[in-house]
Amino acid sequence: MKVLYPNTLELDTAALAGFPTVTLHRYDARAPTLPDDLLDAEVLITWANSAANLSFAAQHLPRLRWIQSLAAGPNDVLAAGFDVARVRVTTGSGLHDRTVAEHALGLLLNAARRFFEMRDCQLRGEWPGHLGGPQPDRAPGTFRTLRDARVLVWGFGNIGRCLAPLLQALGATVRGVARRPGVRAGVEVFGEEALPALLPETDALVMILPGDASTRHALGRERLALLPKHAWVVNVGRGSSVDEDALYEALVKGEIGGAALDVFEQEPLPAGNKLYTAPNLILSPHAAGGRPQGAEALIVDNLRRFLAGQELRNVI
Amino acid sequence: MKVLYPNTLELDTAALAGFPTVTLHRYDARAPTLPDDLLDAEVLITWANSAANLSFAAQHLPRLRWIQSLAAGPNDVLAAGFDVARVRVTTGSGLHDRTVAEHALGLLLNAARRFFEMRDCQLRGEWPGHLGGPQPDRAPGTFRTLRDARVLVWGFGNIGRCLAPLLQALGATVRGVARRPGVRAGVEVFGEEALPALLPETDALVMILPGDASTRHALGRERLALLPKHAWVVNVGRGSSVDEDALYEALVKGEIGGAALDVFEQEPLPAGNKLYTAPNLILSPHAAGGRPQGAEALIVDNLRRFLAGQELRNVI
Ligand SMILES: NC(=O)c1ccc[n+]([C@@H]2O[C@H](COP(=O)([O-])OP(=O)(O)OC[C@H]3O[C@@H](n4cnc5c(N)ncnc54)[C@H](OP(=O)(O)O)[C@@H]3O)[C@@H](O)[C@H]2O)c1
Ligand SMILES: NC(=O)c1ccc[n+]([C@@H]2O[C@H](COP(=O)([O-])OP(=O)(O)OC[C@H]3O[C@@H](n4cnc5c(N)ncnc54)[C@H](OP(=O)(O)O)[C@@H]3O)[C@@H](O)[C@H]2O)c1
Repeated sequence: MKVLYPNTLELDTAALAGFPTVTLHRYDARAPTLPDDLLDAEVLITWANSAANLSFAAQHLPRLRWIQSLAAGPNDVLAAGFDVARVRVTTGSGLHDRTVAEHALGLLLNAARRFFEMRDCQLRGEWPGHLGGPQPDRAPGTFRTLRDARVLVWGFGNIGRCLAPLLQALGATVRGVARRPGVRAGVEVFGEEALPALLPETDALVMILPGDASTRHALGRERLALLPKHAWVVNVGRGSSVDEDALYEALVKGEIGGAALDVFEQEPLPAGNKLYTAPNLILSPHAAGGRPQGAEALIVDNLRRFLAGQELRNVI
Repeated sequence: MKVLYPNTLELDTAALAGFPTVTLHRYDARAPTLPDDLLDAEVLITWANSAANLSFAAQHLPRLRWIQSLAAGPNDVLAAGFDVARVRVTTGSGLHDRTVAEHALGLLLNAARRFFEMRDCQLRGEWPGHLGGPQPDRAPGTFRTLRDARVLVWGFGNIGRCLAPLLQALGATVRGVARRPGVRAGVEVFGEEALPALLPETDALVMILPGDASTRHALGRERLALLPKHAWVVNVGRGSSVDEDALYEALVKGEIGGAALDVFEQEPLPAGNKLYTAPNLILSPHAAGGRPQGAEALIVDNLRRFLAGQELRNVI
């Protein structure tokens, strides 16, 4: 059974060895085609493939049965036209927890400590004195520290679970929103129907939703209006979950404190897009993840399950 | 016994009550003088006083025996000319641990995740594509994440002790430097004589030293040269502990990765100072602390000790 693995990251293939019926084949994930001798592959591992490469694979791998993406949100694979009746897709959810959580924490601190505004002053050669020196401690109606801040994590999955204790260590109160309510990892997680009650009690909303039809424009005008005027929105999930026009308007009108976005409806954000100059907007170029960690262990576990005819992990 | 407390922050005076021989008097810490009826005070609590106010107090409080500063580094009090033979000074060390630790963490993430560089691109209307997308994981010779980063905290006191577990939660390895070596809060702390061995093994050097004669230009040309080329310097202690000319040179020559400074030899940093435009320099306007937390508990504890003739906490 041929398993294809991409050349777009360093995989420790020794850690994938030990399955007698499996042969491992490296392929160029950026190339527009795949070589003839790999077209009978049954398993495809993807990471940072070109769109052309994926659409070629969707057309030319008749025996393909399973794709293991190393991305937590394999929107590229889902858009490539694979025959979903025949090909199962599993995600790399779990491989990006620590990197994305770190980035989200950094964006929250950038917002609270106003590093972006300090930078603007520095570039003008000015001392941002209004942001330093003696100041009120945790003034109500502000988001200036994570201490005692109410953080709502919308999309409380693997990344959210990794982020929560970091926020709690800084003194924040964390709640979550997901499809299924309940207590996870000690954090109270609500269904989306609780948002009208939760949003007004939020100092920072961290969005870590996947980009699918169910999350499209999840944060729009109405829900933005429920946030306090000082609340920040951080999005490290997918750009499609935020209505950017509504967000822009809320920023310009000062209806929210600000937004730190790592993901956008269109990436790269096109030159001239109004978000570049929106007030209190921190722009990050889809830089939160991008480095799967521990991919070999996930691949091995799923490969073993696949060969044993068991349920796979991270099925879409 | 008259105890004077400043009008520069909200103190909960009810939490200071219960000492029958003590009377509490609020004073204007910004005024150039003190009113006549307060000049027989024996205890002075200071926070964000004007220089004139402190120097007036140094001249006109003949019965003064103890100053409780709420600053962790009361350089203002020490410079005001009080008679140190008669007047004891205690610091507010401990009241700024969480705020300064949070800020230091934010500066470290700003550096590692290069938010400052993203901001520069954003202001030019450019997508900072080179900082996002698929990328190598923890490439050697870089400081792009706290995971597995080697962080050295120079000045491992109250703030350092609060910062260390936050860094460890993100996967960093933390070591400390202080006057007395030993293990503190589970972190290995070395004396300054270990710096030649420690600095070459450092990805991020966090300086939290007090500003006194013993720390003046502690980080100069020679020690900077011992840091790896990718290492960052973060200073949230006092500006005097860094030789800014040597630091500037190291930045311009690319001999270190960058520097994030919250404190400067002269504050505000004068207009036209070369640090405003130094490459890879993140400027923060003494914004780490500035919000004493839990001041009442420290004041009460020291007041009780003072009345009982016991040793005070945080004696300089
Ligand atoms: N910026 C980056 O560089 C980067 C990197 C990695 C990942 N990401 C994005 O982050 C997303 C999350 O990653 P993850 O590993 O944490 O995924 P995950 O473990 O699958 O978590 C997704 C969470 O979203 C919730 N959810 C899904 N659809 C929802 C809906 N319609 N309404 C409310 N909640 C919904 C899920 O709820 P249940 O738990 O109840 O199912 C789950 O809690 C990925 O899909 C990816 O798009 C971005
Ligand atoms: N940026 C801001 O807004 C801000 C806010 C608050 C404080 N600060 C600064 O941060 C400093 C530290 O605060 P803290 O509360 O953590 O003070 P602390 O508890 O007194 O800690 C100071 C640490 O520095 C060490 N140290 C002192 N002199 C040294 C020397 N010559 N060589 C090596 N190590 C030395 C001490 O070593 P030992 O433990 O062995 O004595 C101690 O570990 C303050 O003095 C203040 O200047 C800045």
